[in-house]
Amino acid sequence: MELRTVWWEEESVRLIDQRKLPHTFEVVHCTELAHVAHAIRSMQVRGAPAIGCTAAYGMALAARQSSAANPETLLADLQQAKATLDAQRPTAVNLAWATARMVRRAEAVAVEGVNAIKTALLAEAEAIYAEDLAMCHAIGDHGAPLIPPRGHVLTHCNAGGLATAGYGTALAPIRTAFAQGRPIHVFVDETRPFLQGARLTAWELLQAGIPQTLITDNMAAFMMQRGLVDCIIVGADRIAANGDVANKIGTYGLAVLARYHNIPFYVAAPYSTIDLATASGAEIPIEERDPAEVTHIAGIAIAPHGVNAAHPAFDVTPHELVTAIITERGVVRPPFLDALRQLASKP
Amino acid sequence: MELRTVWWEEESVRLIDQRKLPHTFEVVHCTELAHVAHAIRSMQVRGAPAIGCTAAYGMALAARQSSAANPETLLADLQQAKATLDAQRPTAVNLAWATARMVRRAEAVAVEGVNAIKTALLAEAEAIYAEDLAMCHAIGDHGAPLIPPRGHVLTHCNAGGLATAGYGTALAPIRTAFAQGRPIHVFVDETRPFLQGARLTAWELLQAGIPQTLITDNMAAFMMQRGLVDCIIVGADRIAANGDVANKIGTYGLAVLARYHNIPFYVAAPYSTIDLATASGAEIPIEERDPAEVTHIAGIAIAPHGVNAAHPAFDVTPHELVTAIITERGVVRPPFLDALRQLASKP
Repeated sequence: MELRTVWWEEESVRLIDQRKLPHTFEVVHCTELAHVAHAIRSMQVRGAPAIGCTAAYGMALAARQSSAANPETLLADLQQAKATLDAQRPTAVNLAWATARMVRRAEAVAVEGVNAIKTALLAEAEAIYAEDLAMCHAIGDHGAPLIPPRGHVLTHCNAGGLATAGYGTALAPIRTAFAQGRPIHVFVDETRPFLQGARLTAWELLQAGIPQTLITDNMAAFMMQRGLVDCIIVGADRIAANGDVANKIGTYGLAVLARYHNIPFYVAAPYSTIDLATASGAEIPIEERDPAEVTHIAGIAIAPHGVNAAHPAFDVTPHELVTAIITERGVVRPPFLDALRQLASKP
Repeated sequence: MELRTVWWEEESVRLIDQRKLPHTFEVVHCTELAHVAHAIRSMQVRGAPAIGCTAAYGMALAARQSSAANPETLLADLQQAKATLDAQRPTAVNLAWATARMVRRAEAVAVEGVNAIKTALLAEAEAIYAEDLAMCHAIGDHGAPLIPPRGHVLTHCNAGGLATAGYGTALAPIRTAFAQGRPIHVFVDETRPFLQGARLTAWELLQAGIPQTLITDNMAAFMMQRGLVDCIIVGADRIAANGDVANKIGTYGLAVLARYHNIPFYVAAPYSTIDLATASGAEIPIEERDPAEVTHIAGIAIAPHGVNAAHPAFDVTPHELVTAIITERGVVRPPFLDALRQLASKP
């Protein structure tokens, strides 16, 4: 059965509490809008596509729980629900995108009455979810043929099912190749400081029965030197018009190592990640997070008190080091500037 | 006062339990050879020179506790002690070097009787310790001029005072340059899985008042990309005749990154680390340690139960990526094969 990060059940929004993985699998029951808002704010759900899906279900929940007697009042309630949800992660583009789409859908069927809105919004949330899942599967279809026959793939962070409706982006080609019966072995970077690889990617792969080896980030070069890595697939937080890729800290180093060892370096991401308004990676701001996340692991200090630490959360991999970008619209190869522009006109 | 990692006191070997740093400063009392073997195996003491000193004191302990009635039996006991100690960390050449030197010393005075051996071996262990400290200071003198004027040095693991009798090998040029009043800023790789950088190097530099920035291993490439690193200095566990360097896992990746960014990559190590009997790095066995050290941090599971993990403790950096090797006998530059051989005849 496929992993679902968020779903509708018994008139409530259900989601996996990702903060408790990999040790505890706990499902959060959101029976009120406030629960959904809290799940987003507290990062029980994470990953831009997964947050978008959650917000969409949250809007459906708000509609169905509204006591509005007429469409106008219900639309007002929905505007308020959108404002509440959008405020939880103000920088998450997928969140405001999903809630806006839900409001538009409500407006479109308003003439049919309150019950029609309630029915349409649940259907719209399911559609957003289904589209996200279809996007992931399309990335899988396009990406799987790029994995060399032996099937040894190294990945970083978690661009998996947990970050999306399910199935994932960087993990999609891996899942598809595995489903096709091909040999697959994944080297999973633990991904300090947040350990998304050790906590989430390793858990997902275990659930899916896909063979893996968890490694510390500094073991990746050793595995490449030994000839154990056939290709690298990572996700992306933003892709500039020239193909420069912003992604989790550590991605750039992997790309340099891949080049040195002549290993293909692939980026798998939804088309929505490509930002043609950003000319190059130099324009992408790098978020500096709390150094305490480096000096501590799971709340425990690992360094002496008072030590100075840095915590750039992302890095930028220059397009020269990227072999290809895998999107749901197809595989893009260099020169990226023209190829990414052409992708905009593709279905 | 200078840091001491291991010493002889009240007929026992005492050492700092480095696994408990930086939070607790605790001294281990080794009253039996088994305790010394355990200290080496469990990494209460680590770093090739510190292991060498510890093994030497361990041999002195074995001699003094032996009930042998004649030199021949005592020499047999010492051969057994040597075998026990050597087996604890097969990659550390200093271990076998120190125990062999102790056996030779015992053989040299064997005609003088059992007590003479016991006295000579403690003196020999103290001599190995004193030579180690002098070696570190000489590495500092030779290496400090190689640090570029701005003084931004990246280091990995802990080739510091705690890894030696004191003062360190990779940290020696840094300490010496700092003592000379030069600007110094150290980027400290945390060095998963054992976090020797975060726990030990950061602690040592704080003690010494040397400015530093602690980073996760996967941030090193980012710092190089930003032009923040002027040179890299690491230690070595073994150096082959051709200049190939075995050192803590993650070293090889740094060397590749240094080459890509045109940053000098220096290895600082005692002459005893150079093993002319090992033709190349291909002959150096890589110790595979318990994968639980990857799936856990400070005893806490960070990965799902049942996940497969790898733990190569070392990697080999090919000599082509090494700018120079800094030893107490001087700085060795490529071609290493001849230069390292010539070093053998130097004082």
